[in-house]
Amino acid sequence: MTDQSITAAVLVIGDEILSGRTQDTNTNYIAKFLGTLGIDLREARVVPDVEDEIVAALNALRTRYTYVFTTGGIGPTHDDITADAIARAFGVGIDYHPEALAILGARYKNPADFNEMRKRMARVPDGAELIRNSVSIAPGFRIGNVFVMAGVPAIMRAMMENLEPLLQRGQIVHVATISTKLPEGRIAAALASIQAQFVNVAIGSYPFYREEGFGVQLVARGRDLAAVEAAASAIEAMLVAEGDLPERLKN
Amino acid sequence: MTDQSITAAVLVIGDEILSGRTQDTNTNYIAKFLGTLGIDLREARVVPDVEDEIVAALNALRTRYTYVFTTGGIGPTHDDITADAIARAFGVGIDYHPEALAILGARYKNPADFNEMRKRMARVPDGAELIRNSVSIAPGFRIGNVFVMAGVPAIMRAMMENLEPLLQRGQIVHVATISTKLPEGRIAAALASIQAQFVNVAIGSYPFYREEGFGVQLVARGRDLAAVEAAASAIEAMLVAEGDLPERLKN
Repeated sequence: MTDQSITAAVLVIGDEILSGRTQDTNTNYIAKFLGTLGIDLREARVVPDVEDEIVAALNALRTRYTYVFTTGGIGPTHDDITADAIARAFGVGIDYHPEALAILGARYKNPADFNEMRKRMARVPDGAELIRNSVSIAPGFRIGNVFVMAGVPAIMRAMMENLEPLLQRGQIVHVATISTKLPEGRIAAALASIQAQFVNVAIGSYPFYREEGFGVQLVARGRDLAAVEAAASAIEAMLVAEGDLPERLKN
Repeated sequence: MTDQSITAAVLVIGDEILSGRTQDTNTNYIAKFLGTLGIDLREARVVPDVEDEIVAALNALRTRYTYVFTTGGIGPTHDDITADAIARAFGVGIDYHPEALAILGARYKNPADFNEMRKRMARVPDGAELIRNSVSIAPGFRIGNVFVMAGVPAIMRAMMENLEPLLQRGQIVHVATISTKLPEGRIAAALASIQAQFVNVAIGSYPFYREEGFGVQLVARGRDLAAVEAAASAIEAMLVAEGDLPERLKN
C-alpha cells in the first residue's frame, strides 16, 4: 500500500496439502497474525516435499519480501527435508545446533531413545537461531529473513507467538466491512467511482450465498483511518440511495 | 511420480485470502478433484488483485504445468481484473464474447439492468471458450491450458464439474493410510528404510494431536497399486514388530 510497507510471503511445504489430504489453515492464521502487526502478506505458495522446489520457491520469495514464513517438513522422518533445503537455498552448511540437541535430548530418560532420526530435528542451517514453542520440544528456526515453522497448526501458532518480538511492525491496516442485500452488478459502477475517489483505500466486493439469503460484503482497507471511514461512509450513502439498508459489520 | 504425469497448478487470485479475511478452500477441493482424474497438483499460489502479479504468476505456472486452474476475480466489480490480466499474460486482446453476452443478457427483463459493469462479465480474452455452470449465469473460461473460474466455492465447483470432460486423465494415484499410536521419532528409521525399498511409492508421516490422543498417520501413495499395498504391508509389519496395533484407515 505504501513503499514503506513491511511485506511477507508464506511458503507451505508439504505433499499432503497438494494431494488434498490436508486443508491448509496455516496461511490464513499467519495472514491474520501479520495483519495485527501491520505486516502485509503479499503472496503464498504451496510446494511439494521436493528439495529443488523448496529451494527455488524460497529464493524467489526471500529476495522479494521483508519476511518469509515457512510451514512444514521439520519433523524427524525421511520426508522432513525443509532444513536441508533452506541451508541449500542460503548456500550455507547445516549441522546439529547445540541448544537444540540439549533441549531435545533432555526429553528422553533413556539416551538410546534420542536416536539419530530424532536428532535430525536439531539440525539447522549454519547461522540460524532457534524458535522455541510451548507445545512441542522440537524448535523451528530463523535464518536471515526466513522463519521456519512446524506444519502442525498448534505448534506453528506457538512458534509464531514466540517469533513475534523479532518482527518489525508496520502501520496497521484499518478495515470497514459493509453488508448489503443489493446485487453486485447493480452497485458496481457506483462502487468503482467511490474507489476512484479514494486512492489510498482498497475496496473489495465479496458476494455471499447463504441459506438465509444472498448479498455482498463490501470491504474498505487502508492505513489512513480517516480515509477508510470516509470511503465506508460513501459506500453506505450510495447503498441507501439505492434503496438498501446497509449493515456495518464488526471486523 | 513419472515423466508422463499430467500436472497442474492452482492460482488463487484475491486480496481477501492474503488479508486473512477468507479461508481458501478452493485449492483443497481442486486438489481432490484432480486426484480423482489422476492429475497431479504440483503447486499452488495465492496472489493479490494486482495485474502485474497475476500476469507474472500465470506465466510462470502455465509454461510449467499441463494445466492451470485460477479462482477469483471474474465478477462485475472494479476489483475483478482476472480476465484482463489473463489476456495480457497470453498477449491477446479481450472483448465481449457473444455467447456470454447472450446468456447474461437473458437474465434481465429490463435491458437497462444489463449495465456496463454486468457486461464486464462477458469479456474474455480472444480465443477463449466459455465454462458454463449451473449455479450462476456468469461463465468462466478456458484459454490454452488455463481454466479461469469463480472464487465463490459453490460456483467454482460447478465450473470444475463442467470442465472435467476437457481434461486429459492420468493414471490414478493409489493411497493407503495407516494410523499408529507410536511416536514418529521411534519409527522414523524403520520408515526411512521402507521408503528406500519402495522407490515408486511416496511415504509421508503426519503426526496428529487430538483430544482423544496423539498419533501418526502414515500415508503411502503411488501409481503402482501392488507397490502401494506392499509398502503399506511393510509399514504395518514394522509397527506390529514395534508393539503397536496399527489401524488401516479408509481413504
